[in-house]
Amino acid sequence: MDCPPVWFMRQAGRYLEGYRALRRRYSILELAKNPELACEVTLEPVRAMPLDAAIVFADILLPLEPMGVGLRFSPGPVLDKPVRSAANVEGLRDFDVEEDLPYVLRAISLVRRELDGRVPLIGFAGAPFTLASYLIEGGATRDFLRTKAFMHEEPRAWEALMRKLRSVTFRYLKAQVASGAQAVQLFDSWVGALSPEQYRKYVLPHSRWVLDSLRGCGAPVIHFGTGTAGFIEDFSAAGGDVIGVDWRMDLSAAWRRIGAKAIQGNLDPALLLAPKRMLREAVQDILRQAGGRRGFIFNLGHGILPQTPAANVRAVVDWVHNAGAQGEAERATGGGGKIPVNLLDEGQRARKR
Amino acid sequence: MDCPPVWFMRQAGRYLEGYRALRRRYSILELAKNPELACEVTLEPVRAMPLDAAIVFADILLPLEPMGVGLRFSPGPVLDKPVRSAANVEGLRDFDVEEDLPYVLRAISLVRRELDGRVPLIGFAGAPFTLASYLIEGGATRDFLRTKAFMHEEPRAWEALMRKLRSVTFRYLKAQVASGAQAVQLFDSWVGALSPEQYRKYVLPHSRWVLDSLRGCGAPVIHFGTGTAGFIEDFSAAGGDVIGVDWRMDLSAAWRRIGAKAIQGNLDPALLLAPKRMLREAVQDILRQAGGRRGFIFNLGHGILPQTPAANVRAVVDWVHNAGAQGEAERATGGGGKIPVNLLDEGQRARKR
Repeated sequence: MDCPPVWFMRQAGRYLEGYRALRRRYSILELAKNPELACEVTLEPVRAMPLDAAIVFADILLPLEPMGVGLRFSPGPVLDKPVRSAANVEGLRDFDVEEDLPYVLRAISLVRRELDGRVPLIGFAGAPFTLASYLIEGGATRDFLRTKAFMHEEPRAWEALMRKLRSVTFRYLKAQVASGAQAVQLFDSWVGALSPEQYRKYVLPHSRWVLDSLRGCGAPVIHFGTGTAGFIEDFSAAGGDVIGVDWRMDLSAAWRRIGAKAIQGNLDPALLLAPKRMLREAVQDILRQAGGRRGFIFNLGHGILPQTPAANVRAVVDWVHNAGAQGEAERATGGGGKIPVNLLDEGQRARKR
Repeated sequence: MDCPPVWFMRQAGRYLEGYRALRRRYSILELAKNPELACEVTLEPVRAMPLDAAIVFADILLPLEPMGVGLRFSPGPVLDKPVRSAANVEGLRDFDVEEDLPYVLRAISLVRRELDGRVPLIGFAGAPFTLASYLIEGGATRDFLRTKAFMHEEPRAWEALMRKLRSVTFRYLKAQVASGAQAVQLFDSWVGALSPEQYRKYVLPHSRWVLDSLRGCGAPVIHFGTGTAGFIEDFSAAGGDVIGVDWRMDLSAAWRRIGAKAIQGNLDPALLLAPKRMLREAVQDILRQAGGRRGFIFNLGHGILPQTPAANVRAVVDWVHNAGAQGEAERATGGGGKIPVNLLDEGQRARKR
């Protein structure tokens, strides 16, 4: 039996020694803007353990900087000129991927060359809502009140903003694929702050536009969100070849609700800090729910936490890879959707070497 | 057609002028510990608008202070001696409601006397998990990492802590009923940080214990949580006469998933800051989904935000009360569970005067 492919959000990050060493010398933005360093950071986890994909090192907020809102990390992201009015939306600079974010595209080419087909490379971008929330809040937030106020009080400016952002996101992802990304991920990390109705009305059409536009770009798209258990049907209907599911819902329930579609998920990143026995049980529970479906990618429900022991990440990779051989996953009666990815095959080929 | 009863979490709070005036002179703890002031604060919203219940002014963290962990607000809650070990759990002082929180019970008696049967009075307490999260984190948190680490690494200490807290919660709520509360609410505000499996394993048995123990106490119990869309079936199965649902799922979906049970919810508090037309549409949408079910209480998905215009709160109360008369809510074919409350009848009787 095949085992599912496994990779992790933020697999290139502070839990790794090499990354920490580089971060002592460079800021996040310096790393991201230097293709050689970004390439190095991207490759570290892939060299350290048998992950089934590399994920380019970047930050979802990079495209916002050239739009003229300022961007720094201290340590969380801060936008110095947040969007608070229709005039602010109007004033956002248009964005030219090749001109404004050449370093991401260059990093992707470099990584592809270095990987030399060993594992596929995944690119990513923030979804329009999640980008809009940072633009409006000016940084991280708990309650998304400014974002919701803008949405409610300035529906036309909201629409204009979302149209700008969806175009940015689409062009950015398309350019990543053109530069060598073999799959891309659309990150709508904060969409779980919304009601199903708010999602359907203010967000879904724009995510759908991006996902529809990406069809035929030659790379499968993973559509990721957290806290979507209240409207996973709508989230899935917006599109994407693979739907990201976080730990706040059971995988089996997710499949019941969205039908035969590929899913990526859904270990709670906090479990990577738990005792090994408990971590292993949680991994096995996920594999049981995935039931040997081909349309499943083992991942976390959100990014790896900085304080995670690298040995635990490595252990999860091994358990997932051994799952097929040891028969820990039971084959489900129904199919789970296929991952339309040579990516998957490429990853599995790599492991057999 | 009957209209649903309506009240709001944190209806006695900073959005009201009288409360703000008192808060300029007294801290939250000073208000809560002075039964006359707490009574005054409790009554303000009920005098200002035709709400169908009063909710005693208190804070879910009050019982933690006599347990010896320290409690102050600056402005969010801070516990100076958080629980970080099995020894800390062991060292928690046992709690005697009458001795340690006499002021809450006295406030309840005062409010009952002042209300003189006009509307019923609701008491409340934090659920074991939510209390544990504050005890362990030492305050508010975004990711509940310390709580989850404690749960995973110290399962026996976690169990001991939850057993202590469930006893506290039960005795506190029972004493509130004995002092005059006609319904009580169990607040598991942060349970949505968990996976369904974590909820079932580490939390549900303790919530169930509280809810089972309260049966026959003579007051209906509202079981409230947020972010529960991934395991609302389990949350509902833990017990409670009325299940609180937040805005992150549709009411109609909640009823489909938990069956004929009474529900309280589920307006996004952010919508109380939105333009009136939009707020009204959102209220009507909820009433449509409730479809005239008797087992429905109109409320928010979480507490009223401090910056909410009081006029908007008042408008929602009026719209909900007029819903029956104007036929805005459609009668559903299925029943929605009954609120086993003379509370409901008492509220409606009051309005007819």
